[in-house]
Amino acid sequence: MLPIAVDAMGGDLGPPEIVAGARQAASELGVPVLLVGDPDAIGDPGGLEILAASEVIAMGEDAATSVRRKKDASVVRAAETVREGRASAMVSAGNTGAAMGSALLRMGRLPGVSRPAIATPIPVPGSLPTVLLDAGANAECQAAWLVQFAQMGAAYFTGRYGVEAPRVGLLSIGEEPGKGSPLVKETHALLADGDSAGLGGRFIGNVEGNDLMSDRVDVVVTDGFTGNIALKALEGAAGVMRDAVFAVLMSTDEAIKASEVLLPLLAPLAAELDSDTYGGALLLGVDGVCIISHGSSSTSAVVNAVRVAHDMVANDLVDRVRQAVKG
Amino acid sequence: MLPIAVDAMGGDLGPPEIVAGARQAASELGVPVLLVGDPDAIGDPGGLEILAASEVIAMGEDAATSVRRKKDASVVRAAETVREGRASAMVSAGNTGAAMGSALLRMGRLPGVSRPAIATPIPVPGSLPTVLLDAGANAECQAAWLVQFAQMGAAYFTGRYGVEAPRVGLLSIGEEPGKGSPLVKETHALLADGDSAGLGGRFIGNVEGNDLMSDRVDVVVTDGFTGNIALKALEGAAGVMRDAVFAVLMSTDEAIKASEVLLPLLAPLAAELDSDTYGGALLLGVDGVCIISHGSSSTSAVVNAVRVAHDMVANDLVDRVRQAVKG
Repeated sequence: MLPIAVDAMGGDLGPPEIVAGARQAASELGVPVLLVGDPDAIGDPGGLEILAASEVIAMGEDAATSVRRKKDASVVRAAETVREGRASAMVSAGNTGAAMGSALLRMGRLPGVSRPAIATPIPVPGSLPTVLLDAGANAECQAAWLVQFAQMGAAYFTGRYGVEAPRVGLLSIGEEPGKGSPLVKETHALLADGDSAGLGGRFIGNVEGNDLMSDRVDVVVTDGFTGNIALKALEGAAGVMRDAVFAVLMSTDEAIKASEVLLPLLAPLAAELDSDTYGGALLLGVDGVCIISHGSSSTSAVVNAVRVAHDMVANDLVDRVRQAVKG
Repeated sequence: MLPIAVDAMGGDLGPPEIVAGARQAASELGVPVLLVGDPDAIGDPGGLEILAASEVIAMGEDAATSVRRKKDASVVRAAETVREGRASAMVSAGNTGAAMGSALLRMGRLPGVSRPAIATPIPVPGSLPTVLLDAGANAECQAAWLVQFAQMGAAYFTGRYGVEAPRVGLLSIGEEPGKGSPLVKETHALLADGDSAGLGGRFIGNVEGNDLMSDRVDVVVTDGFTGNIALKALEGAAGVMRDAVFAVLMSTDEAIKASEVLLPLLAPLAAELDSDTYGGALLLGVDGVCIISHGSSSTSAVVNAVRVAHDMVANDLVDRVRQAVKG
């Protein structure tokens, strides 16, 4: 089994958090992990293999420039290991643009893919997540790209959750086909008129913002500008509400006592709503499995990212996407 | 004191709910209310004045067409009462497009306003709401319109919350000025270079989706497509999480017992997060106060809408917006 390459230098919490996650993933999941980065920063790899990389692309750095200039950056090297067949997938919690750029440059696009897209699972309490794409790779999109996002998203949903012909919705501001931006109207026409067999999913028409966190749709397609704003709005709301509920539970002595019963019952819901649970976003459309985790990824987020990376390799994600786009 | 005209026929819950809200508003707030609609459907007005209107524009109807054809529709008549000086403001929980169209046609735009925009308060636990605009009036926008949205939103925030020079942010997918869509980049340049005194608020640059439900910004400007999706995503998330937390509180006998302490403590948070609390959205840029409430508006939502309408009349909202746009 080829290892999963983990960019040890990425993430707001620093290499120790990432390395701890990688070590835990290797021991809990039995999945080999290759740590990519500065051996000094990595410290004790706990028996994991290290690929030394002398450079780091920081969170705020311009991705396009730095990916080209810093050829020995950990995230660039991680992508390289996949292309060279030394690793089966890459995971990075660093600069999103740099991870995307590294994957694009080193793994390359799959044949026929116009633009890779970031696919992010949105938690839905009591149900499978909704996969949203594009969650931020392409601020400006064309209708034909959105059709490919639908194909790639459906392939991913089937590969990850085992659901054949998932429901695909187009994010808009009204359910009627005539509602929305010119891009949405054009995409709607293409998806509605197209051979739905070629989609790999069932096109259910327009969906709205409140459908994202519902079980009414499986895959939601939109441009990267709208997708990123919707996703961050949801993540922000989940965090604010979790903190607000927790503050109430801790607000009085009586509440704290009552919470002794309720906190263990609320914990699974909190986990379900925590983006760390989902292992991060996938960059779909490149020739390799590339997982981009939150900058704030904790140890458990890294474990989940490695698990998803491993699952997606085992489930032939890249081949599924290749076939979906070929049509 | 001129009455607030309430479209008695609008809303998913039907005239009885709206009429109950109007009656409660009149008695609790001491604000006169004029009910507009079919007297038979209205039933007992509880002493409130009725303006008979024989037609109704249903939720699903095409707004542009029906507003022109149904001259005796309740929502059209409600807007007319404001233009004619028979009411000081209108409130509708019906078809959003029809309320907007009626206000535009009957009240007209303020001089210099390119496009009216829907301004919606987003709850922020423990803080003043964030006002988002445009929340759906204009699916496609130009940069100059967004600059006007900033001016109108700042004027509204000051009028409603008494905060001088509120912080105005531009919704984007990265905080750097160069991040976002072409529309965002162009708008950013206009807002950053413009005379900030003319804005009526302080431009703090780009903000992201997770800033909407935070106290980092007061007024968030975006196009109506993005704004509507972000708003509905947040409303959906708030509803899903409220239901999920409530389900946990009711999940076992022990939890139910513990909830006896916690539910009363959670109630203020639930109210804070409930859009009904905020009285609905305002259509800014028309020559009159026009409040558009949720289709699902309850009695208490109608009471709050009448309260906000009354406050906005008392606080000279329309003059504030007029001055803000004139610059």
